[in-house]
Amino acid sequence: MSSHPRTLPADGIRLDRSSPVPLYQQLYRSLTAMIGERRQLAPGTPLPASRALAQDLGVSRNTVLKAYEQLQADGHTKGLAGGGTVVTSAAARRTRAPRGSALAEAGDRHVALGEAGDRRSARSLSRGGRRMMGLAAAPADHIPAPGPWDLPFAVGVPALDVFPVAQWTRLYSTRLRTAPARLLAELDSFGYRPLRETIASQLALTRGVRCDPSQVLVTEGPEHAVALLRDCLLDHGDEVLVEDPGHRRTRAEMARTGAVLRPVPVDEHGMRVEWGLEHHPDARLALVTPGRQFPTGAVLSARRREKLLAWADTHQAWIIEHDPEGIPKGPRPRAALQAGPAGQNVVYVGAFGATLFPGVRIGYCVLPEALVDPMSRIAATFNHGPSLTSQATVNDFVSSTHFAAHVDRLQTVHAERRAHLTGELRRYIGDTVRHAPIETAGTHLVSDLPPDVAGSEVQEQACALGITLRPLHHYCLAAPARDALVLGFGCVRAPTATYAIRRLSDVIHRLTR
Amino acid sequence: MSSHPRTLPADGIRLDRSSPVPLYQQLYRSLTAMIGERRQLAPGTPLPASRALAQDLGVSRNTVLKAYEQLQADGHTKGLAGGGTVVTSAAARRTRAPRGSALAEAGDRHVALGEAGDRRSARSLSRGGRRMMGLAAAPADHIPAPGPWDLPFAVGVPALDVFPVAQWTRLYSTRLRTAPARLLAELDSFGYRPLRETIASQLALTRGVRCDPSQVLVTEGPEHAVALLRDCLLDHGDEVLVEDPGHRRTRAEMARTGAVLRPVPVDEHGMRVEWGLEHHPDARLALVTPGRQFPTGAVLSARRREKLLAWADTHQAWIIEHDPEGIPKGPRPRAALQAGPAGQNVVYVGAFGATLFPGVRIGYCVLPEALVDPMSRIAATFNHGPSLTSQATVNDFVSSTHFAAHVDRLQTVHAERRAHLTGELRRYIGDTVRHAPIETAGTHLVSDLPPDVAGSEVQEQACALGITLRPLHHYCLAAPARDALVLGFGCVRAPTATYAIRRLSDVIHRLTR
Repeated sequence: MSSHPRTLPADGIRLDRSSPVPLYQQLYRSLTAMIGERRQLAPGTPLPASRALAQDLGVSRNTVLKAYEQLQADGHTKGLAGGGTVVTSAAARRTRAPRGSALAEAGDRHVALGEAGDRRSARSLSRGGRRMMGLAAAPADHIPAPGPWDLPFAVGVPALDVFPVAQWTRLYSTRLRTAPARLLAELDSFGYRPLRETIASQLALTRGVRCDPSQVLVTEGPEHAVALLRDCLLDHGDEVLVEDPGHRRTRAEMARTGAVLRPVPVDEHGMRVEWGLEHHPDARLALVTPGRQFPTGAVLSARRREKLLAWADTHQAWIIEHDPEGIPKGPRPRAALQAGPAGQNVVYVGAFGATLFPGVRIGYCVLPEALVDPMSRIAATFNHGPSLTSQATVNDFVSSTHFAAHVDRLQTVHAERRAHLTGELRRYIGDTVRHAPIETAGTHLVSDLPPDVAGSEVQEQACALGITLRPLHHYCLAAPARDALVLGFGCVRAPTATYAIRRLSDVIHRLTR
Repeated sequence: MSSHPRTLPADGIRLDRSSPVPLYQQLYRSLTAMIGERRQLAPGTPLPASRALAQDLGVSRNTVLKAYEQLQADGHTKGLAGGGTVVTSAAARRTRAPRGSALAEAGDRHVALGEAGDRRSARSLSRGGRRMMGLAAAPADHIPAPGPWDLPFAVGVPALDVFPVAQWTRLYSTRLRTAPARLLAELDSFGYRPLRETIASQLALTRGVRCDPSQVLVTEGPEHAVALLRDCLLDHGDEVLVEDPGHRRTRAEMARTGAVLRPVPVDEHGMRVEWGLEHHPDARLALVTPGRQFPTGAVLSARRREKLLAWADTHQAWIIEHDPEGIPKGPRPRAALQAGPAGQNVVYVGAFGATLFPGVRIGYCVLPEALVDPMSRIAATFNHGPSLTSQATVNDFVSSTHFAAHVDRLQTVHAERRAHLTGELRRYIGDTVRHAPIETAGTHLVSDLPPDVAGSEVQEQACALGITLRPLHHYCLAAPARDALVLGFGCVRAPTATYAIRRLSDVIHRLTR
């Protein structure tokens, strides 16, 4: 068996360019059929190199890579230590002969509905379940990082090594020891009132958000705020403007129950609002990150802000303003959209994960007055948690001097780490960093790849070296013009960054050759 | 103004017994119209006594009370300190003249769709949002309990006063101080592997659950497990068998996105499975609490278990087995449905709230093998949390000797508190406790009310005295033949129980006269 056969059986792959089904999905289906029903690819058979197959089929290499990625995510193939990819025996067995259990046949009703996608593992799922499969990313493999306090280059993780753990645990222990039973029993569905007051006053200070504490709803992470808003504001089939590239989890939550995502391109001034409104005039809601676009870092221009607010106002549409960074102010505090003149159509969503630690799992949203009454009722049954003791601890921490000091510290550390990473990228890879038009710190950057290198291939090989990273296309609905890497540096100390960038440069140079 | 006018304007209320709209909803609508558009009931006008109005209209008193309850929950009326209920000025203002903001008019598209319910506060919501309003309970008022460690008679709360807080916080602090960054950064969407192993082995021991740790998915509380399963297994309009009375939050989550709840009555042998299958042959899923029916305490009979499992097997339907008590064994460990012969159609859902503290917010489900693959992909994007440090702490605690000792302690304490509460009820109110057919402890009981006393009225007056309780009808979809109180005793020490029962007996005797 050669490790990279040049071709596949000639009759195996039929691609129809006039079909609405994306080419990579057609390719994926052909390949699963060859592995499964048609038994043309036995377990252990290596797949052709992506470049060769792309050439043979006359498709882009990205198309092949996306199909390969999905095959692997679904367990149909696996990577070999020495490189190359082979068909797994498990996949062949599963695809050929579904187990005899009732379950394996349980999905007939659903399969008869026949949507695209991975039919094997979706057999027993509802249409909704298969929709979620389509929205889900392939699970990332996480390999222990070089040092226990470094996570190169995980996105959205702040400097955990400077988090004042001792202060935090002291506050938590005190809280738990002295908490009345109601704090442990979780009786407060809208959130712990003192924390809601703190959030309201801090957002006023750093983002100009105007609200009463009664408008603040505390949730388990920002995703649950988005999910509650989705179910309260959108119906099946409603259109939602989302940034492309954009924040995957919130976007996926938006579409989870049947809203239709309408991707809007992003440039150096943020989401191209006019383009979006022109192409999707019937949208009911826009999900945006105006303060610092995720993941490009662009700030939504004043002109576009006005357009967006005016649209929401005249079309009775909603804006969800997602601020992944939450409360802390940058060198120049940026006003929230919610603080603008038509802010009554805006729901501001933030979280504490970016300033404390992602595992704190506390998010919040600031509701317009008109939504407070209905959401109070809905939250009483549908907002589960977060833990009141955690909320009380966060409140103790955030209203203490610890927090201001910690935020200052984070900003310094993040700025240093950005500078160091940028330098190492230049030194070992090239002048690849896409400079966001703002100099504030943030915790990730976007670094271009050479034109013929696929981000997913870099990701895969880096992962094998213990380096977690996401290609830009991971955040995209439409394929990006040029792929890039999104590199989080928040939790990567300088020596680790240097080490990881050197390994990464090897990977990229190998793939370029 | 007399405090209880005997009647309402004669032309105000029209009830149509042939309409599919429940009488209490017709009554509620008539009353809101009289308060709002028709201006027949000015702010400050008292409503007639429920008994009198029921007599006048020839409807049951429960019908009137349900309508009144909803009026109050929606802010159309409020209770007076001295008793009686009056129309609020806010309600009248809101109903008459929506605020001039864009928001107040934003719901036109939705209002045009014209579903029943509270139109005022639902104006800006989607159909889904209004569905959720309908599923939501009125927010309960929580009044500080007599002692900080007592919560009379909150349901589902264990003895928090005996929780070993010091041991817990020590484990948590150690975890946090020594945790590698990945624990704080939340990279494990299926749960912390060691905890999944612990759950699998403990469930095998105490419930006979057969599973590999790879089948265990850890979620933020049991509700999120139910929500994920709902979205993966059900489509809009699919029918779900639920127990009546039953667990409100999980039931509401089931229906949140458009599945149709089919209530099945409960008797001393649990859900009336045959009745349910006969009346709703097209159900896709059954949500049950077979181990100890919530809230009645009945154990699902062996015969009904068989019927249910056979149905799931032949109809390719799913069973969600919800075990609100989670892991600990009772005096006689009860086998889970999942452990039965057709267990591959069963998803077992449990949580740690009932043995640690509700605020720990960690639930889990045990997936059939066929769901592991698709759910792994879905969870990677849609399962947010729970905090890995909390999971690690729970694992440390649950696998230590602390846990076994704590569970033993809880069972003793709960049994004592049940005995004490039963005694006090007999002494001050009468022989009212509905005896569940099992003698295991649990943390709540059901106590009958005199035939002419409405649970909601008792709830309201008890609440004013700082006593939280839920009437049985709170857990019902169809009105119960006879109302009762569901009294949680887990977190009520003996002196508090005595104190609260004496106050409660005053309330009940006053209402009986």
